[in-house]
Amino acid sequence: MSRVETRCPKEFLALAHRLADASGAIVRRYFRAGVEVMHKDDRSPVTIADREAEAAIREILGKRHPDHGVVGEEHADRRPRAEFVWVIDPIDGTKSFITGRPLFGTLIALTRRGVPILGVIDHPALGERWIGAHGWPTLMNGREVRARHCGRLSDAALFASSPHMFKRVAAPAFERVRKRCRQTVYGSDCYAYALVASGFSDLVVEANMDIYDYLAAVPVIEGAGGVMTDWRGRKLTLASGDRVIAAGDAAVHAQALALLNGARPRAKSAKR
Amino acid sequence: MSRVETRCPKEFLALAHRLADASGAIVRRYFRAGVEVMHKDDRSPVTIADREAEAAIREILGKRHPDHGVVGEEHADRRPRAEFVWVIDPIDGTKSFITGRPLFGTLIALTRRGVPILGVIDHPALGERWIGAHGWPTLMNGREVRARHCGRLSDAALFASSPHMFKRVAAPAFERVRKRCRQTVYGSDCYAYALVASGFSDLVVEANMDIYDYLAAVPVIEGAGGVMTDWRGRKLTLASGDRVIAAGDAAVHAQALALLNGARPRAKSAKR
Repeated sequence: MSRVETRCPKEFLALAHRLADASGAIVRRYFRAGVEVMHKDDRSPVTIADREAEAAIREILGKRHPDHGVVGEEHADRRPRAEFVWVIDPIDGTKSFITGRPLFGTLIALTRRGVPILGVIDHPALGERWIGAHGWPTLMNGREVRARHCGRLSDAALFASSPHMFKRVAAPAFERVRKRCRQTVYGSDCYAYALVASGFSDLVVEANMDIYDYLAAVPVIEGAGGVMTDWRGRKLTLASGDRVIAAGDAAVHAQALALLNGARPRAKSAKR
Repeated sequence: MSRVETRCPKEFLALAHRLADASGAIVRRYFRAGVEVMHKDDRSPVTIADREAEAAIREILGKRHPDHGVVGEEHADRRPRAEFVWVIDPIDGTKSFITGRPLFGTLIALTRRGVPILGVIDHPALGERWIGAHGWPTLMNGREVRARHCGRLSDAALFASSPHMFKRVAAPAFERVRKRCRQTVYGSDCYAYALVASGFSDLVVEANMDIYDYLAAVPVIEGAGGVMTDWRGRKLTLASGDRVIAAGDAAVHAQALALLNGARPRAKSAKR
C-alpha cells in the first residue's frame, strides 16, 4: 500500500480544475445578479449560487468517483469515512458574494485517509486560481508561486476574516498576535491564504472555522513552502478543530504559535 | 455668479477620467511587483507607487488648471483656498496594495468653494471605475448605477475599513450600529462606498479619516441616490472632520445616525 505522502495523481489535479470550472461558471452567473439571500440555522447567509455550485461539483464527483466521499457546506455528507474524501465550500465568503465584493472563493480539497493532499482556492469573479497538491509546486493561474521570507512577526502582514470570529479565550490570543504584527487587514475570506502562498502576505490566523473553510488551503500553502497547522501546531485533517494558522515563513509561524498559546510578548508592539 | 449646485462642467468629468487613467497605469505597473514599503511619520505605509501616481495627477492638473488647488495625501498642498480644489488619494488602501489585494483604489475629488462636486473611485487592479458629479447620474464603467432601498438598519449590510479605526467614544458608537446590522464586513477600503453606490451594499461607517479618504465618495454616493454626511448629519466639505457615514437609503442613514449619536437601540440585535 502506498504511503499518503506520495505524489498526488495528476488525474486528481485535472479533476479539481474541472470541478472549479463547473462551479465558477455558476457562481459568476449569479454574482451581482440580485440573488435572494436566505439564512441557515446558524444565521449565516446562503444563496442559490452556493447550493447549485456545490451540486454541480457533487454531480461530477458522483459520476467519476462514486467510491469517494464528499463533505460540503451546503449538502449532506456522503461516505465521509472513505479513503478519498472531497471537502467543498462552494462560496467561502458569502457575505462578500452577496455585497458584490469579488474576494469570495470556491474551496475544493481532496483528503486521503483524512489528510489533505490537494487543494484549490478559486476566485471566479477575479479569474484567479491557486492549486496545490502533494508532490507538486503550488500554481496560480498555471504559474508557480512561492511564499516569502519574513523572519519575524513584527515585520509580518496579518490577515483574518473578522475580529469577531474569535470567541472567549481565542480573542485575547489573537490580540497578542495582532499587536505584534506590522499590519492587520480583515475581510479577505480564503483570498488571504492565496496571498500568503503567492508571497504577498505573511500570516493568517483564524478561528470558528469548519473543515471546508480551510482544508483546501493546506496543500496550497505547503506547496508554496509555507506552514499551516492548528493553533497547537498540529497537522490539519478531516478531524481537526476550528482554529488554524498559516504562515509563509516557519519562523513567523513559530512566533505566532507561541503567542497564541499564551507566551508573553517580549517587546512592546511597534504599532497599536 | 453661478451657484455651486449647478451641473458640474463636462470638461471636468473628462479631466477626472484622464487623471484616473494616468494614475491607474502607474499603480498597475507596481501592483504585486515587489515595491519597497516605507513608513510615514504616522507609521502608515507608503510606496513609490503612491508618490508617482499622485505626482502624475498633479502634473496634469498643474498644466491644465494652474489656478486650481490640489490637496493630496503624499505631497504638499497647493493653493488649498482656491475656488476649485482637487483632493487626491493615489492609493486608498495601501495595506491592501502592498499585500497583493486588489480592493485598493484611487480617489479623486473636485471641490468648489469647499463642496465636493465631482468624485472618482477608481480600482485599477479590478478595472472598475465609479464617477459621480453634481447634476449627473453616477456611472460605473460607463453604466448608470443606483443605490438600493433597504428600509431598516436590521436589514443592512455594513462596511468599515477596520474596527480599530474607532478610537475613544467612536468605538462604542460604531458598536451600537454594528450590532443592529444584518452583517458587517471589514477591509474594503474605498470599494465599500462604490458598492453602496451600485446597490450591492447599504452602509459605510468610518472614523479616523482624512478628507482625501472620503470626499471623492460624496458625489458618487449622492449621484446614485444615496446620502453621505459626517456623524452629525452635516454635509461633507474641505473643512469636515474625521468621521463619515454613507448609506444607500435615507432611512438607514437616519437610523444609524441616531445610534452613532447615543440613541439606545429599541430592540435586541438579531445578529451579534
